[in-house]
Amino acid sequence: MAQARDGWQGAGSGGADQRTLRRANLALVMHGLRDGGPRSRARLAADLGLNKATVSSLVGELMERGLVREGKAERGAVGRPGTIVELDGTGAYGVGAEINVNHVTTLAVDLAGEVVSEHRSSVDTRGLRPEQVVDRLVELLHGTLADVAERGSEPVAVVTGVAGLVDRDRGTVSVAPNLGWQDVPVAAMLRERLDEPDYLVEVANEANLAAVAEATPGDPDRRDILVVHGEVGIGGGIIADGRPYQGRLGFAGEFGHMVVDRDGRRCGCGRTGCWETVIGLTRLLEEAADPTDDLRGPELELEERVAEINRRAAAGDERTLAALHEVGRWVGIGAAALTNALNPGVIVLSGYLGEIGEWIEADVEAEVASGVLAPGSGGTRIALSTIGLSAAVRGGAAVAIDHVYEDPTLVPRAGVPELGATS
Amino acid sequence: MAQARDGWQGAGSGGADQRTLRRANLALVMHGLRDGGPRSRARLAADLGLNKATVSSLVGELMERGLVREGKAERGAVGRPGTIVELDGTGAYGVGAEINVNHVTTLAVDLAGEVVSEHRSSVDTRGLRPEQVVDRLVELLHGTLADVAERGSEPVAVVTGVAGLVDRDRGTVSVAPNLGWQDVPVAAMLRERLDEPDYLVEVANEANLAAVAEATPGDPDRRDILVVHGEVGIGGGIIADGRPYQGRLGFAGEFGHMVVDRDGRRCGCGRTGCWETVIGLTRLLEEAADPTDDLRGPELELEERVAEINRRAAAGDERTLAALHEVGRWVGIGAAALTNALNPGVIVLSGYLGEIGEWIEADVEAEVASGVLAPGSGGTRIALSTIGLSAAVRGGAAVAIDHVYEDPTLVPRAGVPELGATS
Repeated sequence: MAQARDGWQGAGSGGADQRTLRRANLALVMHGLRDGGPRSRARLAADLGLNKATVSSLVGELMERGLVREGKAERGAVGRPGTIVELDGTGAYGVGAEINVNHVTTLAVDLAGEVVSEHRSSVDTRGLRPEQVVDRLVELLHGTLADVAERGSEPVAVVTGVAGLVDRDRGTVSVAPNLGWQDVPVAAMLRERLDEPDYLVEVANEANLAAVAEATPGDPDRRDILVVHGEVGIGGGIIADGRPYQGRLGFAGEFGHMVVDRDGRRCGCGRTGCWETVIGLTRLLEEAADPTDDLRGPELELEERVAEINRRAAAGDERTLAALHEVGRWVGIGAAALTNALNPGVIVLSGYLGEIGEWIEADVEAEVASGVLAPGSGGTRIALSTIGLSAAVRGGAAVAIDHVYEDPTLVPRAGVPELGATS
Repeated sequence: MAQARDGWQGAGSGGADQRTLRRANLALVMHGLRDGGPRSRARLAADLGLNKATVSSLVGELMERGLVREGKAERGAVGRPGTIVELDGTGAYGVGAEINVNHVTTLAVDLAGEVVSEHRSSVDTRGLRPEQVVDRLVELLHGTLADVAERGSEPVAVVTGVAGLVDRDRGTVSVAPNLGWQDVPVAAMLRERLDEPDYLVEVANEANLAAVAEATPGDPDRRDILVVHGEVGIGGGIIADGRPYQGRLGFAGEFGHMVVDRDGRRCGCGRTGCWETVIGLTRLLEEAADPTDDLRGPELELEERVAEINRRAAAGDERTLAALHEVGRWVGIGAAALTNALNPGVIVLSGYLGEIGEWIEADVEAEVASGVLAPGSGGTRIALSTIGLSAAVRGGAAVAIDHVYEDPTLVPRAGVPELGATS
């Protein structure tokens, strides 16, 4: 046995397992620095359960890749300041993009999560063919890619959210009722227009991405969250044990089409009484204003419409407040059902629901408290998104940058050709 | 850098990380043998991406712990038969237990999943104090522990499912409406009555455990499943990416209290229109039979009641078939909502719903097909449990035995005292 055990220790001498293990340990250090903050190598080794020589080697490689850097610790209570290691926020970039009913948007973040580029363009997607919409998005992408290139880099990935059902493996939008799309190969179209780039090009459901934007890596209260994201349609996403939950074919999070009001209205999807029919922006507008009211006119941008609702509510307009109250009640009814099923730590109201949140939050909480079997709502809290209407595109950028945390070898060593590192 | 990299390879020379890594690799071999079947050491090494010496050492240790054994491969098309390695089914035992409205049950399985002991006792839990019910369970447990002791072993864990909300960390039943329990420290009560045993004693929600029993380790079609489990109450469980999903405080899976029929009946929980009120056994019995019908009498065991319903349906009794049709429709309505939210690969109907499954399956599938936004029900299939009414107790035993797969060092080496292996 003794000999065989020595054999185990020699496992590092070569082969696929060493590269896999090395990559996993590089990722471990990246996660450690992100979640636990800058630390000395010795401290990092102790916190990660690795030995000091190992951590020195890993940090060395991450420095070569430009992902971490050395800094000086503050002079603490004990001893002299030592050398600490921290993430280099400018070491990598991720790009998020979004195709929604009224707009296309792109945004880039650096490794520290700082936004370094944002472009937005109003587009009436329903009046254009999918190719034309993708062309409009690519125009914006070129702007964002140029912003990243100015920093001497190119992104690790471009992740595009689309308001529809997305087959992530194929990069195809299967069905997007509010866009009128069916089987549109968005990833392939983008790759072609971007001249088959080296970086990853992915497509996802926009509300799923909005959910990612709400998850705070490393925060235990934000490990199991559920995001209800509303613009024209209502979608959402689930973060389970800290990771986006996609379901069998990636269609999880279509909360808007849970039937909550069986005797209610016809939904855009053809069914009756979907949650979307009682909490979507369209319904709120119908309840809050006459058809001739400018609030319901076609000229207003989403932001302007929401701002006007908030203005009227703040001025005490009875009809607006009654309409908000009704939306809040229905948000709570659906949120209670989801809480019984999933017991999330937090349900985040995102998109337009976040923007009108101050008027509906109390109604939502009351319905959840009375509708959930577990005492104290099972510990589930209601929170309003603080990201605003750019949640989806931020989530896309976060997913893009997250590739670096999963596989730091995606970022090349300065001047060193990479051999088989990502094979 | 070269020296630091050598340092990495030397990481195996001692310390906490080596033990953790060793344990993880022992678990890797156990999972590999379970999911991929018996294989030669060389084949195992190739499949797991470890080198041969490593695998030999790991297999040697697992043999010392009695968890794997050598066997002879069938003579194949090529070459002579070699020595293969396989799980030793008799190497460890796990015990499941259940406290439900009408019965307490215990069951033990070996590492191969074979049932080696099962004891069941009818108990009217509502007529007894929690202490009395736990005493009854412990009587059965002594029988099952004796069955395991006869095989020269003791269990790795005893996992008890209770029909109520369970705080798993504390091992306490917070609320169990159908049992009339509140804040009952079941784990502590069991530990005391079992004389503070060395093995783990855990408590969980019984429907969550029933869900575990349906997940087939290693089957990609059974990685994302959702189980709707019905006896008197309706509960369930979620298996996400192959692991039980618990939610923030472990209360996920209370599907029975999602409101689906707002104008419907009062539920035992005090709310109106819960799913339980339209698909629970009580409702089926009310629709299918008059109050004076023996089918609704207090004497029948759950199994007998369900058997009688199946008999009447098979005989073409109109009222029974109409009642089953209505239950099937409502099961489908709730299942569609859950499918929009979670897009599981399979929804398994378990407990009494599985037993009457042949009469409701078509109605469930039709409602899911029409109620789910994603085309083709998003790939979600409806399946009937094949485990019968012992799903929860089998799930408990599976969770118990799963501890061995996560940490094979829980099973001691033959004659070798364990030093810090599980600290």
